[in-house]
Amino acid sequence: MELGPPGGSGPAEPGPRLRGLRGADAAASASSLSRFGAEAGCRAPAVAAVLPAGGSGERMGVPTPKQFCPILERPLISYTLQALERVSWIKDIIVAVTRENMETMKGIIQRYQHKRISLVEAGVTRHRSIFNGLKALAEDQPNCRLSKPEVVIIHDAVRPFVEEDVLLKVVTAAQEHGASGAIRPLVSTVISPSADSCLDHSLERARYRASEMPQAFLFDVIYDAYQQCSDYDLEFGTECLHLALKYSHIKAKLVEGSPDLWKVTYKRDLYAAESIIKERISQKVCVVMDTKEDEEHVGHCLEEMLKTELNVMTSDFEETQRLLNMVEESNLSILYPVVVISVHFLDYESVPLGQKMEKVMQIREFAKEAKKRNILLSGLLIYFPQEEQKLRESLRQGTTIISALIKERNSGLIGQLLVA
Amino acid sequence: MELGPPGGSGPAEPGPRLRGLRGADAAASASSLSRFGAEAGCRAPAVAAVLPAGGSGERMGVPTPKQFCPILERPLISYTLQALERVSWIKDIIVAVTRENMETMKGIIQRYQHKRISLVEAGVTRHRSIFNGLKALAEDQPNCRLSKPEVVIIHDAVRPFVEEDVLLKVVTAAQEHGASGAIRPLVSTVISPSADSCLDHSLERARYRASEMPQAFLFDVIYDAYQQCSDYDLEFGTECLHLALKYSHIKAKLVEGSPDLWKVTYKRDLYAAESIIKERISQKVCVVMDTKEDEEHVGHCLEEMLKTELNVMTSDFEETQRLLNMVEESNLSILYPVVVISVHFLDYESVPLGQKMEKVMQIREFAKEAKKRNILLSGLLIYFPQEEQKLRESLRQGTTIISALIKERNSGLIGQLLVA
Repeated sequence: MELGPPGGSGPAEPGPRLRGLRGADAAASASSLSRFGAEAGCRAPAVAAVLPAGGSGERMGVPTPKQFCPILERPLISYTLQALERVSWIKDIIVAVTRENMETMKGIIQRYQHKRISLVEAGVTRHRSIFNGLKALAEDQPNCRLSKPEVVIIHDAVRPFVEEDVLLKVVTAAQEHGASGAIRPLVSTVISPSADSCLDHSLERARYRASEMPQAFLFDVIYDAYQQCSDYDLEFGTECLHLALKYSHIKAKLVEGSPDLWKVTYKRDLYAAESIIKERISQKVCVVMDTKEDEEHVGHCLEEMLKTELNVMTSDFEETQRLLNMVEESNLSILYPVVVISVHFLDYESVPLGQKMEKVMQIREFAKEAKKRNILLSGLLIYFPQEEQKLRESLRQGTTIISALIKERNSGLIGQLLVA
Repeated sequence: MELGPPGGSGPAEPGPRLRGLRGADAAASASSLSRFGAEAGCRAPAVAAVLPAGGSGERMGVPTPKQFCPILERPLISYTLQALERVSWIKDIIVAVTRENMETMKGIIQRYQHKRISLVEAGVTRHRSIFNGLKALAEDQPNCRLSKPEVVIIHDAVRPFVEEDVLLKVVTAAQEHGASGAIRPLVSTVISPSADSCLDHSLERARYRASEMPQAFLFDVIYDAYQQCSDYDLEFGTECLHLALKYSHIKAKLVEGSPDLWKVTYKRDLYAAESIIKERISQKVCVVMDTKEDEEHVGHCLEEMLKTELNVMTSDFEETQRLLNMVEESNLSILYPVVVISVHFLDYESVPLGQKMEKVMQIREFAKEAKKRNILLSGLLIYFPQEEQKLRESLRQGTTIISALIKERNSGLIGQLLVA
């Protein structure tokens, strides 16, 4: 694969992870085990997580259950799994999916290389799905390859932005109190309607909280509660903290969570999630230089300008080919579409525009190939006038275009040769 | 203004409003007055609206108060004002803004040509701001140019997607019951924490609702309530329905609202709002044809393909110039960035690519001018091979590019000549 005339090239991806996404994640999380000791004087417990993912997504108003709705072409649940997998001290992740979605879920696990996942069949309600997940972890189950954890996290498949920090907090609190859950301030006042749909009374907002996820429990506390609870609870309840209180007499410790814990519920939440993910993965850019000597100055000017819009890393490569191979080998593009922009400086007085363009037009063919590997390749010609003022104007426009391509990450515009 | 060689050109905007945005809005809403009679057997009351907009946007985590945060470069509150102005039977709209934002707000009203707006100074709390708005409407105020309405709507500046339908419902219910408010199901379980941050009890989710906006009141009911209420209420309360109950002994009628009523609270809500607005204004596309005879077939093929991705209107124009003037005259681009894509069919065997391109490159200069008028102009070259299969492939790619440009609406990519 050859990218036309040599020039600078810049891929955009979650930067420092070029050294291997999974490796970096594991390294970042490995030290957290010791944080248990530092934070709460507890030893690190054996932890598993259960994700009920049997929902039908009625409120979303779309036929696909919301946990399978695509964000940048990847299903929402895969982002949530990634967030949990990143935490090395979570040993097992049990996902409860309906029978009809079992194959879909297996496909997702394979395609996005998820690890430590076990699937169980979802029940007809959220509580029944969680119970099925817990049963798979209980040691009294025959042929169970999973071991019973000390603490179990319960999380939602549709809360993809959960951070290790809050997981650690609820697990630590569950070790101490038996149960714990994340809470958030109420956004709206809560009111109680009368039978004729009139206001009966409103609650004082400051005295109440929204119960969110994740929650964590000593395994025996929540498993005992589920074993005792009534069919009515399993059918109509949703709140695990309530079961722990009612049947195991444990008052859960409540932990203030961040706004990131919100649940993808409506279509607008999918839009919000996509924008947040795009913003996060667009924070770091890698600029690769392979400029002729007289262009080197210009290349560095561009880099300086990009730094004002994006965080930029620089490395040196002899060939664009090597870069593209590296992107592919890093497995980055398995999880996110990676933007690669091949930047060419054009002194249009010395080479006729048409001739230069026809040569660089080859990029369209490369882009088609790269798209198959989830790499979004575009070309950018930056005019290279001798006059300093005009040159800076060209570079400024180039920066704007690069930022737009990285931030929008729209596969409809691949293979184009843009001009600044 | 000339757009290079003649070719098809397509602007994207909220379609049917080309005949004049305000005119169309007024026409759509005028008939609604009579709906009062049909829906509830009531005569049409005099209605005003009060918008408290004095908030500081703490929860957003950004320095700009959220009502002034830009969406497609226009402040959020302008979208909310537009939604209320569209309803012709709302006679006056009172906005309460802090003294330091008064000039900003005047600038917004002027720039986006809002009508029927009066400004009052916000108080230090939401309740005090609403009270100030009501005072401006009360007839006992000296030098008041506003007349006292029968019914007053209270809405939030940060709920831009309110529809006439729900406004009509709360106003009609307020006429009958004295007070009314929109409600939504709770997304999260609500819990009551004990003093030591442990779970005290959780509420049965089905028995409670989230109180949202808009709300409506007989003016005397809510004004009397505010005149009687304590400083404690004004400082720490937020819920108008509660004041109507406590001081005027009116049990508000609760009306189920749509998910659209949600309040822009966090940064993610701004992302969601932007995506929703982009989606709405991208629903209709106007295709303008000015093709030579041998290209006419191709033009129609493109149109058919666009129809599968977008709603398409067709009109005929002799000149692109006339189209651009029309977009400007329609005032469409005052409220939204309008995407115009100049499409050229290229038989690249008969004309050398370079020559054709240099000519069409003029589009960059036009685009700079158009941007000043909030028109995002791009060019698109579609290859025109004789072979049917290849032609359809070119058109398909053209459709993808057009859709991407319209949906992203990114000003960073204007003036580019894209190739399909």
